Amino acid sequence: MDYQAATRLLPASYLRIAEEAKKSVSNKIQELLEKRKWPEEGWSDSMLEAFLHEIALMDSNNFLGSVGVGEREGRVFSKIVHTRHWGLSHGIGRSGDLVEPQPKAVGSSLVNKLTNALSLDAIKICGITSVQNCFVAPIATGMALSLVLSTLRHKRPSSKCVIWTRIDQKSCIKAVQLSGFALEVVDTTKNGDELNTDVFAIEQLLTKIPLEEIVCVITTTSCFAPRAFDDIVSVSELCAKYDIPHLVNNAYGLQSSKCCHLIQTAATKGRVDAFVQSTDKNFMVPVGGSIIAGFDKTFIDDISKFYPGRASASPSLDLLITLLSMGKIKFKKLLKDRKENFEKLKSGLKLVAEKHGERVLETKGNNISLAFSLSYIKGLRDNEITELGAWLFQKRISGCRVIDVGSVKDVAGVTYQGWGSHNSSYPTPYLTVAAGIGMGKEEIDVFLNKLDTTLSEWKKKGQVRK
Amino acid sequence: MDYQAATRLLPASYLRIAEEAKKSVSNKIQELLEKRKWPEEGWSDSMLEAFLHEIALMDSNNFLGSVGVGEREGRVFSKIVHTRHWGLSHGIGRSGDLVEPQPKAVGSSLVNKLTNALSLDAIKICGITSVQNCFVAPIATGMALSLVLSTLRHKRPSSKCVIWTRIDQKSCIKAVQLSGFALEVVDTTKNGDELNTDVFAIEQLLTKIPLEEIVCVITTTSCFAPRAFDDIVSVSELCAKYDIPHLVNNAYGLQSSKCCHLIQTAATKGRVDAFVQSTDKNFMVPVGGSIIAGFDKTFIDDISKFYPGRASASPSLDLLITLLSMGKIKFKKLLKDRKENFEKLKSGLKLVAEKHGERVLETKGNNISLAFSLSYIKGLRDNEITELGAWLFQKRISGCRVIDVGSVKDVAGVTYQGWGSHNSSYPTPYLTVAAGIGMGKEEIDVFLNKLDTTLSEWKKKGQVRK
Amino acid sequence: MDYQAATRLLPASYLRIAEEAKKSVSNKIQELLEKRKWPEEGWSDSMLEAFLHEIALMDSNNFLGSVGVGEREGRVFSKIVHTRHWGLSHGIGRSGDLVEPQPKAVGSSLVNKLTNALSLDAIKICGITSVQNCFVAPIATGMALSLVLSTLRHKRPSSKCVIWTRIDQKSCIKAVQLSGFALEVVDTTKNGDELNTDVFAIEQLLTKIPLEEIVCVITTTSCFAPRAFDDIVSVSELCAKYDIPHLVNNAYGLQSSKCCHLIQTAATKGRVDAFVQSTDKNFMVPVGGSIIAGFDKTFIDDISKFYPGRASASPSLDLLITLLSMGKIKFKKLLKDRKENFEKLKSGLKLVAEKHGERVLETKGNNISLAFSLSYIKGLRDNEITELGAWLFQKRISGCRVIDVGSVKDVAGVTYQGWGSHNSSYPTPYLTVAAGIGMGKEEIDVFLNKLDTTLSEWKKKGQVRK
Amino acid sequence: MDYQAATRLLPASYLRIAEEAKKSVSNKIQELLEKRKWPEEGWSDSMLEAFLHEIALMDSNNFLGSVGVGEREGRVFSKIVHTRHWGLSHGIGRSGDLVEPQPKAVGSSLVNKLTNALSLDAIKICGITSVQNCFVAPIATGMALSLVLSTLRHKRPSSKCVIWTRIDQKSCIKAVQLSGFALEVVDTTKNGDELNTDVFAIEQLLTKIPLEEIVCVITTTSCFAPRAFDDIVSVSELCAKYDIPHLVNNAYGLQSSKCCHLIQTAATKGRVDAFVQSTDKNFMVPVGGSIIAGFDKTFIDDISKFYPGRASASPSLDLLITLLSMGKIKFKKLLKDRKENFEKLKSGLKLVAEKHGERVLETKGNNISLAFSLSYIKGLRDNEITELGAWLFQKRISGCRVIDVGSVKDVAGVTYQGWGSHNSSYPTPYLTVAAGIGMGKEEIDVFLNKLDTTLSEWKKKGQVRK
Repeated sequence: MDYQAATRLLPASYLRIAEEAKKSVSNKIQELLEKRKWPEEGWSDSMLEAFLHEIALMDSNNFLGSVGVGEREGRVFSKIVHTRHWGLSHGIGRSGDLVEPQPKAVGSSLVNKLTNALSLDAIKICGITSVQNCFVAPIATGMALSLVLSTLRHKRPSSKCVIWTRIDQKSCIKAVQLSGFALEVVDTTKNGDELNTDVFAIEQLLTKIPLEEIVCVITTTSCFAPRAFDDIVSVSELCAKYDIPHLVNNAYGLQSSKCCHLIQTAATKGRVDAFVQSTDKNFMVPVGGSIIAGFDKTFIDDISKFYPGRASASPSLDLLITLLSMGKIKFKKLLKDRKENFEKLKSGLKLVAEKHGERVLETKGNNISLAFSLSYIKGLRDNEITELGAWLFQKRISGCRVIDVGSVKDVAGVTYQGWGSHNSSYPTPYLTVAAGIGMGKEEIDVFLNKLDTTLSEWKKKGQVRK
Repeated sequence: MDYQAATRLLPASYLRIAEEAKKSVSNKIQELLEKRKWPEEGWSDSMLEAFLHEIALMDSNNFLGSVGVGEREGRVFSKIVHTRHWGLSHGIGRSGDLVEPQPKAVGSSLVNKLTNALSLDAIKICGITSVQNCFVAPIATGMALSLVLSTLRHKRPSSKCVIWTRIDQKSCIKAVQLSGFALEVVDTTKNGDELNTDVFAIEQLLTKIPLEEIVCVITTTSCFAPRAFDDIVSVSELCAKYDIPHLVNNAYGLQSSKCCHLIQTAATKGRVDAFVQSTDKNFMVPVGGSIIAGFDKTFIDDISKFYPGRASASPSLDLLITLLSMGKIKFKKLLKDRKENFEKLKSGLKLVAEKHGERVLETKGNNISLAFSLSYIKGLRDNEITELGAWLFQKRISGCRVIDVGSVKDVAGVTYQGWGSHNSSYPTPYLTVAAGIGMGKEEIDVFLNKLDTTLSEWKKKGQVRK
Repeated sequence: MDYQAATRLLPASYLRIAEEAKKSVSNKIQELLEKRKWPEEGWSDSMLEAFLHEIALMDSNNFLGSVGVGEREGRVFSKIVHTRHWGLSHGIGRSGDLVEPQPKAVGSSLVNKLTNALSLDAIKICGITSVQNCFVAPIATGMALSLVLSTLRHKRPSSKCVIWTRIDQKSCIKAVQLSGFALEVVDTTKNGDELNTDVFAIEQLLTKIPLEEIVCVITTTSCFAPRAFDDIVSVSELCAKYDIPHLVNNAYGLQSSKCCHLIQTAATKGRVDAFVQSTDKNFMVPVGGSIIAGFDKTFIDDISKFYPGRASASPSLDLLITLLSMGKIKFKKLLKDRKENFEKLKSGLKLVAEKHGERVLETKGNNISLAFSLSYIKGLRDNEITELGAWLFQKRISGCRVIDVGSVKDVAGVTYQGWGSHNSSYPTPYLTVAAGIGMGKEEIDVFLNKLDTTLSEWKKKGQVRK
Repeated sequence: MDYQAATRLLPASYLRIAEEAKKSVSNKIQELLEKRKWPEEGWSDSMLEAFLHEIALMDSNNFLGSVGVGEREGRVFSKIVHTRHWGLSHGIGRSGDLVEPQPKAVGSSLVNKLTNALSLDAIKICGITSVQNCFVAPIATGMALSLVLSTLRHKRPSSKCVIWTRIDQKSCIKAVQLSGFALEVVDTTKNGDELNTDVFAIEQLLTKIPLEEIVCVITTTSCFAPRAFDDIVSVSELCAKYDIPHLVNNAYGLQSSKCCHLIQTAATKGRVDAFVQSTDKNFMVPVGGSIIAGFDKTFIDDISKFYPGRASASPSLDLLITLLSMGKIKFKKLLKDRKENFEKLKSGLKLVAEKHGERVLETKGNNISLAFSLSYIKGLRDNEITELGAWLFQKRISGCRVIDVGSVKDVAGVTYQGWGSHNSSYPTPYLTVAAGIGMGKEEIDVFLNKLDTTLSEWKKKGQVRK
């Protein structure tokens, strides 16, 4: 908008002031486009909306007088849908490559490119300073792991299996299954309360299985206590030694400087081919995206080129808006708050544990999640144990998991003893909770209070029943 | 909201009128939930917004006094992002299954279930009346084809290749590559101007390759003229005969009663395991989703169970809003308009063709797309040919493709003669256009006019250059 | 946004296309600011939103790093409220003048100025081509009439009363009362079915009352049949002759070329000081604004200068968005549709009337509203008559008025015989309906059908009761 | 929405949880409707949006299958406009009364009634506990004062003038002028630095002017230092003694417990007929509304009945959303913060004053605004003085006013010596700033810092010039 054009409507001196204010905004946008760095300070919603609407006008479906004679012209039937996407309807990527720009959708392409650039900056800020490349895929971590595995298959055409240190979450297992690989499960080892990576067993498999049949080793950082973050550094050294790709599931690990430090060190000392993280768990956006990152620019590019066809721009758009709205300063504050919350949660849990004759398990290798023993429930039937979680959820506490140690489950053709506990013979039932990014201090107080009450009520009920 | 509570603020008689009006709305919602059918008449935006906001309150992150102690609690940092998702931040699916509901996200789960139910209804309305099951996946058609292929691999563990009747779009090729299968390409045969399925060559491959090594045959309905829709019926009969899965890429075929009739007939006479279609191309939503459908309930369920982890709810949400906003009646009107537009475009193109000494290629087997000969450009250099498309795009005509017949391209390890023309030796260069759903009649007029002008200008320039 | 800054993210050629498209948008904006004319074609919502967000950044409360140390700094607590106003929170006007720009709120001031400029253009298009000045006031017509009266008082310090040709709507009467003037009511005269202005009686009052005690004559154009539009031309000639101000209540008259023609002619042949119209009734915006217009630039300026303090920008904003979204072409189409709808409604009513032994009253002097005789109800009790309207409203027909001719009412100290019928002795009860701008043809069909049914049902019930 | 209807889509147990959560929301709404009290805790935006969309469905223009045959049917052309009003397009009030409900617009009427009820509660919380009645008018304070004056005229038909203790803001003066009353200005008296009400002079006027010619006395609470809040208590006692109405301009006084205490005491000890406050200045909504309140239910009703016709619902809607979003608790916190900010601003200003050889004027009778002497500028020319404000505004400090004491101005026919300084002979030029509700602590720091710098720069420049 040319402010001078308005001088027949408003005094030039007034317009000058507005123009200068506008210039500050334009400068911020220009700086973003030129430097492609996460801004220190968050943008106001007014500024963001103006930016998004301007970007949307760059897509051909929003051009004045545009005529579409193809099979996909970005037409949007519903005004509600149009509005929620600012008219950005072309998605991201082209048939050849998820990060390739589209001539018909310059705005959407810009969203895609910017989000990837800011995400790279964000990963560095989290502590993985030597990351070289990344992109946001509109698929959650499970599907993203599968995409990486499928890409690796083409580099290792004889590969048949994945070596994987056990973590009892279905999506990683199913990702391997989807890609058509067999799973070589390495059970965790118990040290005190904590469950650790059995590095020795991994090496044994590496020497036992013909190397060309192994597509990669998959490790996991962020996980539920009492499982510790994997010993990624040692595994990466093994991977370097045996020349086997190493894929790290860093699902919600960006928010933990410890997880990031592990990946950074592993990449320096050994081999990390790619690490995958969730956008929602680390950056407080709706579920749907992941960031696939690595230390070799070309390999990450290869992965993006394996993505077949276009894809939803929504996860990228959500992340871009969030990063710009948040700014680096606020993100660092959130990371700091999370650390403090973890300590607060830990000490609070200890008090509740003492009161109820339980204890907080010692798991120094995990600074996101905590486990609280439930020795009391041992021997109860399954449905009785589940009930505790249900009671808490009825009190609007979500995210608690009650883990019985005796359950056995078949997942994708493999039988897991003690499913849910990441180990085939963990001795104590327990309840896990996490201090995730964005949690409020007051949430901890409410939770501790309700946990205390629920345990009392529930034990009472339990005693009656026996 | 209990209207009676407001009687100290407003006269009871007034409240009664509003209450009755509200009841009509509630009845529509109740009917939707009970019958799970696409409503005849579209819902107003006011009603839709009220519905969406109510659904959002069913997700635990929006509960009053909710406390989250897990690693993913649906927290959303940006108000802009929160608003565009109505607070529905949990995505869809669970680690085990894309269509499984989440206890923490009842609203999101409802969106998921409803969209799938309405989509099934929509497919029937399009003409595939015996469809048994479908689900919306938040991945575009390429990735969706890959998901089906990966599922099929587990049923056919020795399979190595896909038999595919050639269509020159990268995403299908890359989908096969991603899943790790080799591609057995069957070239099209030329009949008059039209390119048809070489059913004979497919059968030859079925007899030549060990059947257990074939994961499936992939055919395509909707495509660019002069390629005709594949002869799906014959292929399905072959697939039945040889007991080989048959996967149909019905990308934008739901909008064509012809494509749908082909699939319906094929399923009756032979074998169709799954057919995949784009949500954006058929229902005018932003890019990002596909509907995976089939005639065997269990097989489609199996595919959804192969999806690893949660996924973005955005494509489902867009489709749900659009279907409710549109209603069956308006959709049928759009289908009818599209047919008329196709005829209008065809006859208009014929006039332009006559004027310029060209012709509209005869392709009765394709009622979405049309090809317009460009005999004039034969022998020009590549960049000169591309320029014609660029000229049109500068005039804000998007979607035209200019196809030279001499280009050779390597895609995913296979060399294609005449890349872009779906055939290794098509004689005439041409330009394709399509009459897609939602196109306006006035767009056709503008297009024809600009095509005419551009051809004149461009020929002039061409003559000068020679 | 400087597109060149993005060349490290996207190909320059792509950016060029987007830049050109952006330029078309900028040109439209620039043309608007420079020419201050209603655009022929409506703007897309995408373009409008981009424009509004940019304008909002011109207000100081949205400046980056802005600090407020006054008592009113445009702070907005609720994000929902902020969003619905695009952050434009300063309102319009200054303590001195409703059309004066504010240095702190350049964006809001621009909205104000632009709306006034486009409104002037709109009035001309409606047919009042010699209008010289107008402004949008965030008050509905009643309050706007009062504002004009109060301004006139200062020019006529001895004035005490208003001469007014009777129209039975409370808001005009209350406007006069609010300003502290007495009302000299001139009853309408009956000619056939139609009620007309008693020009003779007006002149009698002008000769009887000392002229300095008359603040002005108020006439009304748009009104409910069987009252005809006032004979504004004759009254304006009288006003010129006696040098008395003439204020025209043109509430929903802009949509009628007849009303506008009357005002235009009156201004040419006689005296019209100001005419006031509703924004909602003429331009399909929510209730809340009016346009005060006239043929003497200075007098209209005087009125705006009488407005004490700032005011809501909402009505101006709604009108600006609507005018830009609509464009002149669409408005003219709506005017044409309205005329056709009036004829359709009239002929449809005639058929229903014949069937029920009633008739459509002959009121050539009113081309917005129609009256349908209800000779049947004569003699019924009040609550029985009202019931007919209620029945129709229960069938979701709103806007019908059933007029009994026998009621007597005191309003603001004056007793009106036959209140509601604009005349002290109209013989027939009737029902009125109007063909307002934006009415859909299908609404007419539904209405006629329900009127027919309701009359039958109601008569049946009536006969039983007697 | 009947959750049971969804049991064919989702497990009943999941639906139960969501239903219970929904019930908490419904309970809050029901409590609001029944008790009509400002909720303690603010509502989430999700909940508010759901509420607003449901309310909108109560208006007839949003009814399913609604047909409009009147002249105003709430039709909205632009989707953008529709969305920003949630489809609430009928405005508030009826021709007879601003607080009367409309049968066609039950939702809008509910907004109107609720806002008035919550506003009454809010005024009590602010400290005026014996308030009996109030309503929100969609007009800013100036116009609202005029509405009260016009209502009073009908109770005092011989009245001609207003007695008014001088405050140099145009809008009050213009409000009096608009209503057609003469202004009897009572200059302030200087005590130390502070300017106070000349109660003695008021009484002199009350004895001098025939009482029936006085429509009321107008006093002002909130004002710019060094003017103190008026001595409302003494004036109210005079008004009681002489039986003259007393109207208080409490523009931004609700945020000050002192102002509210004054009004409460005055109403107890003497006579206060009505007090008027701005919605934007006290509750952080966009400009456009005011609350007219009083201690006699009938008198306030009379004022609302004097409003001619309908009016914009926007100011009521903004206030309702804000009050519900804020909740009492947050409001009390904001009031507390404001008090602290005032002290912080005061002590900060003192430090800057010392540095520059100036002082903060002693004005204990004003706890919102502060004056900072600018003895330095005495003798400068007008444009030089104005420049200081401009310099600050260029640094994005808005709201500072620089007051020279020598200016003379004619406003509405009266000449004011020392215009701007509320007194005809104030000795020192000064700058005023205010600590308004919603100001951030960090804004104060930035302001003090920039004031310091600007004073230094400006003095430097000034010295050069001399």
